[in-house]
Amino acid sequence: MKVGIIMGSKSDWPTMQHAAEMLDRFNIAYETKVVSAHRTPHLLAEYAESAQTRGIKVIIAGAGGAAHLPGMTAAFTSLPVLGVPVQSRALKGMDSLLSIVQMPKGVAVGTLAIGEAGAANAGLLAAQIIGTQDSDVMAAIDAFRKEQTDAVLSNPNPAEDSQ
Amino acid sequence: MKVGIIMGSKSDWPTMQHAAEMLDRFNIAYETKVVSAHRTPHLLAEYAESAQTRGIKVIIAGAGGAAHLPGMTAAFTSLPVLGVPVQSRALKGMDSLLSIVQMPKGVAVGTLAIGEAGAANAGLLAAQIIGTQDSDVMAAIDAFRKEQTDAVLSNPNPAEDSQ
Amino acid sequence: MKVGIIMGSKSDWPTMQHAAEMLDRFNIAYETKVVSAHRTPHLLAEYAESAQTRGIKVIIAGAGGAAHLPGMTAAFTSLPVLGVPVQSRALKGMDSLLSIVQMPKGVAVGTLAIGEAGAANAGLLAAQIIGTQDSDVMAAIDAFRKEQTDAVLSNPNPAEDSQ
Amino acid sequence: MKVGIIMGSKSDWPTMQHAAEMLDRFNIAYETKVVSAHRTPHLLAEYAESAQTRGIKVIIAGAGGAAHLPGMTAAFTSLPVLGVPVQSRALKGMDSLLSIVQMPKGVAVGTLAIGEAGAANAGLLAAQIIGTQDSDVMAAIDAFRKEQTDAVLSNPNPAEDSQ
Amino acid sequence: MKVGIIMGSKSDWPTMQHAAEMLDRFNIAYETKVVSAHRTPHLLAEYAESAQTRGIKVIIAGAGGAAHLPGMTAAFTSLPVLGVPVQSRALKGMDSLLSIVQMPKGVAVGTLAIGEAGAANAGLLAAQIIGTQDSDVMAAIDAFRKEQTDAVLSNPNPAEDSQ
Amino acid sequence: MKVGIIMGSKSDWPTMQHAAEMLDRFNIAYETKVVSAHRTPHLLAEYAESAQTRGIKVIIAGAGGAAHLPGMTAAFTSLPVLGVPVQSRALKGMDSLLSIVQMPKGVAVGTLAIGEAGAANAGLLAAQIIGTQDSDVMAAIDAFRKEQTDAVLSNPNPAEDSQ
Amino acid sequence: MKVGIIMGSKSDWPTMQHAAEMLDRFNIAYETKVVSAHRTPHLLAEYAESAQTRGIKVIIAGAGGAAHLPGMTAAFTSLPVLGVPVQSRALKGMDSLLSIVQMPKGVAVGTLAIGEAGAANAGLLAAQIIGTQDSDVMAAIDAFRKEQTDAVLSNPNPAEDSQ
Amino acid sequence: MKVGIIMGSKSDWPTMQHAAEMLDRFNIAYETKVVSAHRTPHLLAEYAESAQTRGIKVIIAGAGGAAHLPGMTAAFTSLPVLGVPVQSRALKGMDSLLSIVQMPKGVAVGTLAIGEAGAANAGLLAAQIIGTQDSDVMAAIDAFRKEQTDAVLSNPNPAEDSQ
Repeated sequence: MKVGIIMGSKSDWPTMQHAAEMLDRFNIAYETKVVSAHRTPHLLAEYAESAQTRGIKVIIAGAGGAAHLPGMTAAFTSLPVLGVPVQSRALKGMDSLLSIVQMPKGVAVGTLAIGEAGAANAGLLAAQIIGTQDSDVMAAIDAFRKEQTDAVLSNPNPAEDSQ
Repeated sequence: MKVGIIMGSKSDWPTMQHAAEMLDRFNIAYETKVVSAHRTPHLLAEYAESAQTRGIKVIIAGAGGAAHLPGMTAAFTSLPVLGVPVQSRALKGMDSLLSIVQMPKGVAVGTLAIGEAGAANAGLLAAQIIGTQDSDVMAAIDAFRKEQTDAVLSNPNPAEDSQ
Repeated sequence: MKVGIIMGSKSDWPTMQHAAEMLDRFNIAYETKVVSAHRTPHLLAEYAESAQTRGIKVIIAGAGGAAHLPGMTAAFTSLPVLGVPVQSRALKGMDSLLSIVQMPKGVAVGTLAIGEAGAANAGLLAAQIIGTQDSDVMAAIDAFRKEQTDAVLSNPNPAEDSQ
Repeated sequence: MKVGIIMGSKSDWPTMQHAAEMLDRFNIAYETKVVSAHRTPHLLAEYAESAQTRGIKVIIAGAGGAAHLPGMTAAFTSLPVLGVPVQSRALKGMDSLLSIVQMPKGVAVGTLAIGEAGAANAGLLAAQIIGTQDSDVMAAIDAFRKEQTDAVLSNPNPAEDSQ
Repeated sequence: MKVGIIMGSKSDWPTMQHAAEMLDRFNIAYETKVVSAHRTPHLLAEYAESAQTRGIKVIIAGAGGAAHLPGMTAAFTSLPVLGVPVQSRALKGMDSLLSIVQMPKGVAVGTLAIGEAGAANAGLLAAQIIGTQDSDVMAAIDAFRKEQTDAVLSNPNPAEDSQ
Repeated sequence: MKVGIIMGSKSDWPTMQHAAEMLDRFNIAYETKVVSAHRTPHLLAEYAESAQTRGIKVIIAGAGGAAHLPGMTAAFTSLPVLGVPVQSRALKGMDSLLSIVQMPKGVAVGTLAIGEAGAANAGLLAAQIIGTQDSDVMAAIDAFRKEQTDAVLSNPNPAEDSQ
Repeated sequence: MKVGIIMGSKSDWPTMQHAAEMLDRFNIAYETKVVSAHRTPHLLAEYAESAQTRGIKVIIAGAGGAAHLPGMTAAFTSLPVLGVPVQSRALKGMDSLLSIVQMPKGVAVGTLAIGEAGAANAGLLAAQIIGTQDSDVMAAIDAFRKEQTDAVLSNPNPAEDSQ
Repeated sequence: MKVGIIMGSKSDWPTMQHAAEMLDRFNIAYETKVVSAHRTPHLLAEYAESAQTRGIKVIIAGAGGAAHLPGMTAAFTSLPVLGVPVQSRALKGMDSLLSIVQMPKGVAVGTLAIGEAGAANAGLLAAQIIGTQDSDVMAAIDAFRKEQTDAVLSNPNPAEDSQ
């Protein structure tokens, strides 16, 4: 396991699975788990404190509303933590975003965009971090990036369906 | 000690002292302590979990930015927790407010206004909670409320200085 | 009756019933009533001023838009008042939230999250307040909190349905 | 007295005096008073309910934060009520504005801009309302408007000081 | 005709008809017209400048987005102008609200809530203005207000359907 | 080709086609292309740098979220660039708007409204720019503006369907 | 005169002079004038309608708060209109921005950033528009852009003062 | 050089130096450079594309307003990019934050808090990323974190000055 993907509730999975899918693309092993900062704070402490010894390199944490999971994970580990603001019902994720990104000096969370794009990019950024020491992963990321570029170049007419 | 007043940093004290001053007015004993959700998460767990056995009835927690202290305190205790959004530099406390108030179902924080007024009112609400079982405190609150009313009634001219 | 649940309009009931359901779980007696700050201000004064003598310990008030009900209830009683911002149509409850939480120094409302989660948590916080003087209620809250924790621990796989 | 100018606190006077100055310009008699929705709710009821019999035609109410004064005044009278959001410390009056303007169907507040310009315009709009039945006032308003226009026309160079 | 109801586009009618319905209730004669600040600025000038001589006492103007209609109407007349922010697609009427309410000193618009409630209240406030000089209208408003109060008082159970 | 219409993704076409339709109305030749600032930055540089030599007079760029396309286009050309904020999922285009409009001194983007209206107006403003040197285009714009005015004047009853 | 720079008030000049300074740099003749949408609506109509015949190619309009000047200018002319949101006191220009940019389909304003940078860029974009038909101006813009680039390249150390 | 710290302007240095200071604490070599997305887009492409071959592991990019630097850096490299929203004048960094964090799927920026705390945390997170493959750095981070904790524990009285 190189990456831990945790989330505050099962209802966050439709968002967070995009992180998992991105890691699948780069053949990076990961684990997924529901860990709630508010309902299971001791589990969170234990999960975050033991992550490094279990070989985890990066933790991705997704949560909505008063989204404390990413910041509290960062409080319990020195591993890099990436936060995904899950889109909330009333405030559309603005509450989630501010709760995750506005961390005080000394405990950091690398925050991605609200919702599915942010979850996918958390997977990508985790891969990029692993890629800094794993040239196979870095090559796979370069290939993914080239593929994305080619998809635009080969099909540039906005009024036509993509092939 | 009936009330615990905690805050994420010493820099929150100019705001949070207004909670202490309000409790002073009602002769309610309290303790004040810096407890950081992000820098001292284990202390926070220990503080919140032991509060009830130490006789604490209400915890007031103030924090700014990605203000996780009130919500994480509530995660570690069944005592009522009141949250005070400290005014932050860039976003003026809107981040603090949303991080404190938008808690998920099952773990509650009673949130007050941003800044000094909110801190004072956290002290007042803590007193009101204690007052539901202590008629002396309730009488003191009634007297405070009457005093406030009289201050307006006796000096209603907006263009004159208060006496 | 230990808790009064009031709301500005019948249309707030789908939100506010979550407060009632939470109190049911802890066997705390409550009353529910439509009381409008704007359409029935005298009823509001009478309701709030008589609540304490009727044995009410906590009042939960829910309202949307220019949500004056919680703050005006607090103006007429020394009992603790909890406010629930009902999600509004255009501004999604941001107006309700600010109208409830930004109370001036001297009259406090403990504010919960926008919408159903906030209403449920108002019920929970009311129970926690009552629990500070009723060990049966506190035990029931502890059990509820443990149940919540166990629900996460026993079913931690986000990609599987809950059992 | 044709117009009542009320405000929640003496600290609102530097804003609200601009309403008084505008009414002075049109020789419209007015009264000014501190009336707090939260600290003196009974005074507010009494003030608003008796205003019509005292000859008041329009009430101007200014308040900041969870600004309940204008809406509660409107709840107690059928006279037109104009609301002025006083600029608040943390949220710069956005809380005051939403608390005043987002009234529910059936109880109306005509809301002006945040701060001094809004207070001055509340005085102007009160004069315009009185002007619908008083041709002297309407003529004075027309003259004021013409004066404003002429001030621009006679001194149109932005880089020169006004004469 | 006592009241003019204008709006920037036919698509505003579903909102603005609530102003008309409120005036119907008080038997106040009104006219309705599409007048666009941006597409028919000369018509707007002509409409607003001639309103007073046609006997109009109050103008209600509704618009969405960069909602210039109420403010520009106020620029062309000394009659009281009431503005209704129509709910816009992307920003939900926050743009409409700020464009209408934040008028500079010297030209006033009394602004109501975003959407249908605001339109209805614009009708009500127009009636209240007319009521300051027409005791029949004022009596009708008092009756409407009493009816609203009675509707709450006679049916206070939030969980039951209204009768 | 007088105008280039580019967008970050095919999913922006339903918005951006309104720019194309507006240019069709004025018989102004244009090209449309997907060019992504993030996925094809070199294509963007090449597209923008070569535009002037291909005879392009104005570039319209639409994008959503962290909408970098318009600003980066402006970084690579001295041609006028118009930006259209595409409505985003979570934040409704407020993110797109601020990312496009808040350009630093020295590199300008003329920004239009969020969504379809903004795209149509980008087409219109491009035509107006071309019209400053092409009297046929200017005449066509004048005719379009007159048509818009006449559509309001000939059908001013808001409660009737348009003819 | 190629460009008209207008603004709602003399107090906008410290912002709007940055537009003038940018045009000076490109030797583009311009006129500056206070024209208020609200205080001098007829002057605005006359100014905008006559601009084209006076040889004006682009109009730059700056205003704050409920900033109607740019949109109403666009309503009276087919020339391209650029809008500058002047930073307002309470809402920091967010009101000005939304009032200017959220124009309805059919009447366009190319909007720049809030404040001085936006004013300077309005001057730059006006020059770019004129540059599409004036190769001297386009060459001057290219030179200005190169100068900006060189200023960064020649002095890339952030910790040293610029030379 | 392990880390590149770039920023859009020299005026960002007072913020971004906090990233440098944090890296100093962990003895991580870094370079600092002004690279503007808008004024030097080719330099940005060259800088980002060559970073990996120069040994850079992580790029920290800070910018304000329409902050395109972090996202465009990410567009030109597969290295992890961390973004710091510099506090802007009018909108206090909300524009910077949204422009940096709301990246589309496929190109990621790990975003930190607005201002100095965010810059410091970007340095910390860069160190944490490097620490995943460098046990000396990880040990230094653990020590820094322990130091932070001890500073709170040893001086918990909020009303006393820190020693």
